Amino acid sequence: MRPLTLYPDRLFPADPGVRGIARALFAEVERLPIISPHGHTDPAWFASDAAWSNATELLLAPDHYLYRMLYSQGVTLEALGVPAHGIAPATDPREAWRVFAGMQLLFRGTPSRIWLDHVFTQVFGIDVALEAATADLYYDTIAARLAEPAFRPRALFDRFGIELLATTEGAHETLDHHAAIRASGWPGRVVTTYRPDAVVDAEHQDFRAALAAFAELTGEDIGTWRGYLAAHRKRRADFRAAGATATDLGHPTAATLDLPQADAEALFWRVMHGSPTPADAEAFRAQMLTEFAGMSLDDGMVMQLHPGSRRNHNARLLASHGRDKGADIPGRTDYVAALQPLLGRYGNEAGLTIILFTLDESTYARELAPLAGHYPCLRLGPPWWFHDSPEGMMRFREMTTETAGFYNTAGFNDDTRAFLSIPARHDVARRVDCAFLARLVAEHRLDESDAHELAADLAYNLAHRAYRL
Amino acid sequence: MRPLTLYPDRLFPADPGVRGIARALFAEVERLPIISPHGHTDPAWFASDAAWSNATELLLAPDHYLYRMLYSQGVTLEALGVPAHGIAPATDPREAWRVFAGMQLLFRGTPSRIWLDHVFTQVFGIDVALEAATADLYYDTIAARLAEPAFRPRALFDRFGIELLATTEGAHETLDHHAAIRASGWPGRVVTTYRPDAVVDAEHQDFRAALAAFAELTGEDIGTWRGYLAAHRKRRADFRAAGATATDLGHPTAATLDLPQADAEALFWRVMHGSPTPADAEAFRAQMLTEFAGMSLDDGMVMQLHPGSRRNHNARLLASHGRDKGADIPGRTDYVAALQPLLGRYGNEAGLTIILFTLDESTYARELAPLAGHYPCLRLGPPWWFHDSPEGMMRFREMTTETAGFYNTAGFNDDTRAFLSIPARHDVARRVDCAFLARLVAEHRLDESDAHELAADLAYNLAHRAYRL
Amino acid sequence: MRPLTLYPDRLFPADPGVRGIARALFAEVERLPIISPHGHTDPAWFASDAAWSNATELLLAPDHYLYRMLYSQGVTLEALGVPAHGIAPATDPREAWRVFAGMQLLFRGTPSRIWLDHVFTQVFGIDVALEAATADLYYDTIAARLAEPAFRPRALFDRFGIELLATTEGAHETLDHHAAIRASGWPGRVVTTYRPDAVVDAEHQDFRAALAAFAELTGEDIGTWRGYLAAHRKRRADFRAAGATATDLGHPTAATLDLPQADAEALFWRVMHGSPTPADAEAFRAQMLTEFAGMSLDDGMVMQLHPGSRRNHNARLLASHGRDKGADIPGRTDYVAALQPLLGRYGNEAGLTIILFTLDESTYARELAPLAGHYPCLRLGPPWWFHDSPEGMMRFREMTTETAGFYNTAGFNDDTRAFLSIPARHDVARRVDCAFLARLVAEHRLDESDAHELAADLAYNLAHRAYRL
Repeated sequence: MRPLTLYPDRLFPADPGVRGIARALFAEVERLPIISPHGHTDPAWFASDAAWSNATELLLAPDHYLYRMLYSQGVTLEALGVPAHGIAPATDPREAWRVFAGMQLLFRGTPSRIWLDHVFTQVFGIDVALEAATADLYYDTIAARLAEPAFRPRALFDRFGIELLATTEGAHETLDHHAAIRASGWPGRVVTTYRPDAVVDAEHQDFRAALAAFAELTGEDIGTWRGYLAAHRKRRADFRAAGATATDLGHPTAATLDLPQADAEALFWRVMHGSPTPADAEAFRAQMLTEFAGMSLDDGMVMQLHPGSRRNHNARLLASHGRDKGADIPGRTDYVAALQPLLGRYGNEAGLTIILFTLDESTYARELAPLAGHYPCLRLGPPWWFHDSPEGMMRFREMTTETAGFYNTAGFNDDTRAFLSIPARHDVARRVDCAFLARLVAEHRLDESDAHELAADLAYNLAHRAYRL
Repeated sequence: MRPLTLYPDRLFPADPGVRGIARALFAEVERLPIISPHGHTDPAWFASDAAWSNATELLLAPDHYLYRMLYSQGVTLEALGVPAHGIAPATDPREAWRVFAGMQLLFRGTPSRIWLDHVFTQVFGIDVALEAATADLYYDTIAARLAEPAFRPRALFDRFGIELLATTEGAHETLDHHAAIRASGWPGRVVTTYRPDAVVDAEHQDFRAALAAFAELTGEDIGTWRGYLAAHRKRRADFRAAGATATDLGHPTAATLDLPQADAEALFWRVMHGSPTPADAEAFRAQMLTEFAGMSLDDGMVMQLHPGSRRNHNARLLASHGRDKGADIPGRTDYVAALQPLLGRYGNEAGLTIILFTLDESTYARELAPLAGHYPCLRLGPPWWFHDSPEGMMRFREMTTETAGFYNTAGFNDDTRAFLSIPARHDVARRVDCAFLARLVAEHRLDESDAHELAADLAYNLAHRAYRL
Repeated sequence: MRPLTLYPDRLFPADPGVRGIARALFAEVERLPIISPHGHTDPAWFASDAAWSNATELLLAPDHYLYRMLYSQGVTLEALGVPAHGIAPATDPREAWRVFAGMQLLFRGTPSRIWLDHVFTQVFGIDVALEAATADLYYDTIAARLAEPAFRPRALFDRFGIELLATTEGAHETLDHHAAIRASGWPGRVVTTYRPDAVVDAEHQDFRAALAAFAELTGEDIGTWRGYLAAHRKRRADFRAAGATATDLGHPTAATLDLPQADAEALFWRVMHGSPTPADAEAFRAQMLTEFAGMSLDDGMVMQLHPGSRRNHNARLLASHGRDKGADIPGRTDYVAALQPLLGRYGNEAGLTIILFTLDESTYARELAPLAGHYPCLRLGPPWWFHDSPEGMMRFREMTTETAGFYNTAGFNDDTRAFLSIPARHDVARRVDCAFLARLVAEHRLDESDAHELAADLAYNLAHRAYRL
């Protein structure tokens, strides 16, 4: 068995001088509280505080970073215990774990390796590496730990030093779990985020069903443009009451429109009561971004835009297993022309905050940094999804800082479903940021005292400010 | 008060071995004369040699790198003393400077920080950092210095070691300041550059007015295709007489056309005498690039192409303040298909020099280096605008050198309105190039003696050659 | 005369700690056999084993990396002895070599410098640098060596430690040289690769002629869709019999289609018997990619896709000298939408291997790594053409590893016509990969023992596996 250990200097540059600076910077931010203002954990965990079952169901089957890599090498999703349309296969979870354990070499050099090893050592106290020979040891150790009270969701939340955790709920969904959390008296701060995609995107498979629920929850006549907008305002208020300070929109593109209200209303009718073309669907999403910006200016909710993913690229997998199975592939994304209508209307409002994310790194230096370095309403979100990784984070800083500075960025968020990996992800982000700052200091491009201030800003203060916490 | 100092090893890599090589390379080029073959300083400064007034009017209000960053954080342009449509606001310049001084943290990690500190220490001899507490000390010190003869434009020109400085004038503008400079007997070499955008781009807001001035200055019948082209030739001769060796074209795209002359003439008539569509305007700009290449082959003037900026992205700011207020945003730019018509006609002419710039770094390795590594007429300009920065310069070398080599690049130019920052900008470029060369030497990819030759070529000789000085 | 030497630590990072790790990794892979599964050497060399003539004809005139750089600086192709339409100019090869020798500064910082110096020192034993003063010494030394038996093609093949070398032949070409190699009893493993571009691409200048040869070689009625496909199957079998395990497709784009067979047949008729539009030609290439994927699933041949080059960009040079003269320029390339039809049909087949190459590095992290990190049939080829260089290779690892891992890549291939440079190219790839791995180890992102396994996988095992050798 190979020993497993986390090196204290991991992710710091190799040069001894730069590493020393990075180490000193990191020492001051390592234990700052975690703010997780954007993510996809399940609020039911914190509402019920029920124990998790086993390693496969907790760590492997829900994590598309892991199973997509195994799938790419010919392993079936069934063999890994991944549910199809929400229904778990008959696979023995221990067998699934063994398959996973035997293929760890696939994760060499990937962030999954870093996150997993952090979880294994720091959360579960395991000190040997995962491989075929240790699969059962892992499985049994994790099962035993999960049965302990100290490994229940709320206990881990406290142990992880989480100051705030945001989940994401649809505009058509109830906020019962959040209500239950608050009613329970547990002081952990778990808030929601308003994600209206399913009631905005006419190409979403749940569009009609989501609209029905949206109508029922709000009591508004959402068949009219006025009623539909009022329903959004009502639900935004519900979400704010459940702690939300932000919204999130996952459109395929960053397209925005600022139509005259008569045209917007006509478009609404085509989308809701006609047979909308793909162009109608795109135009309606685009118009709604501008409508939402106006609502945000009114109610103070921060907007998050996550464009650029070509969802469900693998049609056969979508048919057999459903959405979110590792087959969402990024594509080229334009921001400059796409955002102009919205920015033309609201871009100069310092009271509005729009946080932009991208999967297209070619836009960092070309589009996003120049936009964020000019428009008062814009901030840059952290490197997202495939770029939430040491190399990806470093490229983000290298390509945005010189034009947008640090203070037009919005701190780190982990954007994860994998609750146990949250400390690991923030640890990586803090280390990489300290490594970047250390290089600037070593090259006399940044005062060391400024770097110390910045390290805390990047680790904590910027997220606190951008999300208006 | 925090001390302010420039470290002798700034911008060199942290590794002691590589840093030692970089230091040795830089020592030999640090004091080479400055060639500034492309920029936007005001020739009136050198014609009148009048003293500048104060820190705000000299350093802050004209520098969109500075005020766009403050604007992005909610500071109004009025508060910073930035003119609206050429008219300065009533803001007390000392108050504007205080606002700026109090927000220096925004410039952490940006090239503005490096340029400013260079100007503060090397030009004004200030040795404490700018912050709220030192705002008045700065303001008063700079005002006092500017009143001294040694801080007049011509004295600084000499002190900076500038061998040649090119300004940029429109085809419709007189060259009176240049004439005054030559008539004054002052030996400083300030030359002009031919920039005909306003009489070529039918979408330019000054198009008609510029055409009228163009007609008057040339006496040609510019309402005919033949007369219009003759007017360009005449003005190019005027500019050459005022020292110009180059032209500059800031089209939105790199599109070129090589139409049969009858079609070109028909297009000309639609643009000049009809109601040109956006496609007509684009086609006319494209055709004119090829016409200008032909003229360059005749008169030896170097062509510079600066495509890719989406000018005046912020319509409200354009309305309230006018052009060039920090709201020009880069976009994706194609060169391969766009340049093919021009290159098909003139690309193989070794007697023609076309210098290409870009704001889209994804084209460095993919398009620009392969084009410049093949066509005899092409050279790559230095990293431009948002990329005129340590990281931007390093990426330029990393992404172009292997395919285009060093000798298809055109040396550095500062492209600035900020006269006092010119030494700072060349200092940065020389340091970053030496850092890049030092790494190649340390990795045994370049002989150290070749690196010494190259350092001087990149700092001085390549610009001298490319601009035919 | 300047000494010429290869430094043992060349291409390793400068930091002493990282360099030590890289050196240890490289020591174990430096002498592994060379697998060259994709390239463009001439099988006639190994069939006849005739001596090469002189430095110009062997090293300069066929190498577009070299003469394009000289051409970009105004040297004519005639002066370098480059053939026009296959006919060598009257230029004295010694004079051509002198021209080349005198302009070595152009290659500073380029991979050509590294490859050339490797060939000069390791193959020919020369120990002074190439420059004007040593041009004749080089020319004479190389001529003398080439006359020796040890410098014949087969002797060098053995000396280079080549385990397998793949050439590329068209679907319309005979495999006589390969037959001659096998018949000769020489045990060197030289295999072919099936490249059907000329009989698939209706815009290829040799399309009609190639089709005629294709019909004759197969005896099929290629005027029918069924016969045309059968002819491909027949020739693929011929190629497999000549050792081929792979096909290669150099389409301008990555577009694929999966048409109903009736539509595919109608398209076929337009292309073969009508006047196909450019859109027809593109559609037919796209459809054929999916047809070939189906054939690969049947016969086990690996597919290689090399899209993204705008061939023959310089029309005058095409007219005067023909294809492949350094004027192929990369352009933006889309993979996500383009490959979806093919992947929708065959993407989930673990029995299929498609190796993707690109000239557009912006697709590495955005498109290619996410695709290869999901679809079982996809692997990423090594950095290609302009990116087959130290910086290019490093960017490839930095931008693909975190999402695709190492095991969705296909090892190195040299893709070269320049037989003598093959050891140099593999040497560079192995060094750069070890440098990348060493950094991961130094930053505690990879176990050192895993890095040793990976070094061998990247240098040898992955190519062996991906190409099914």
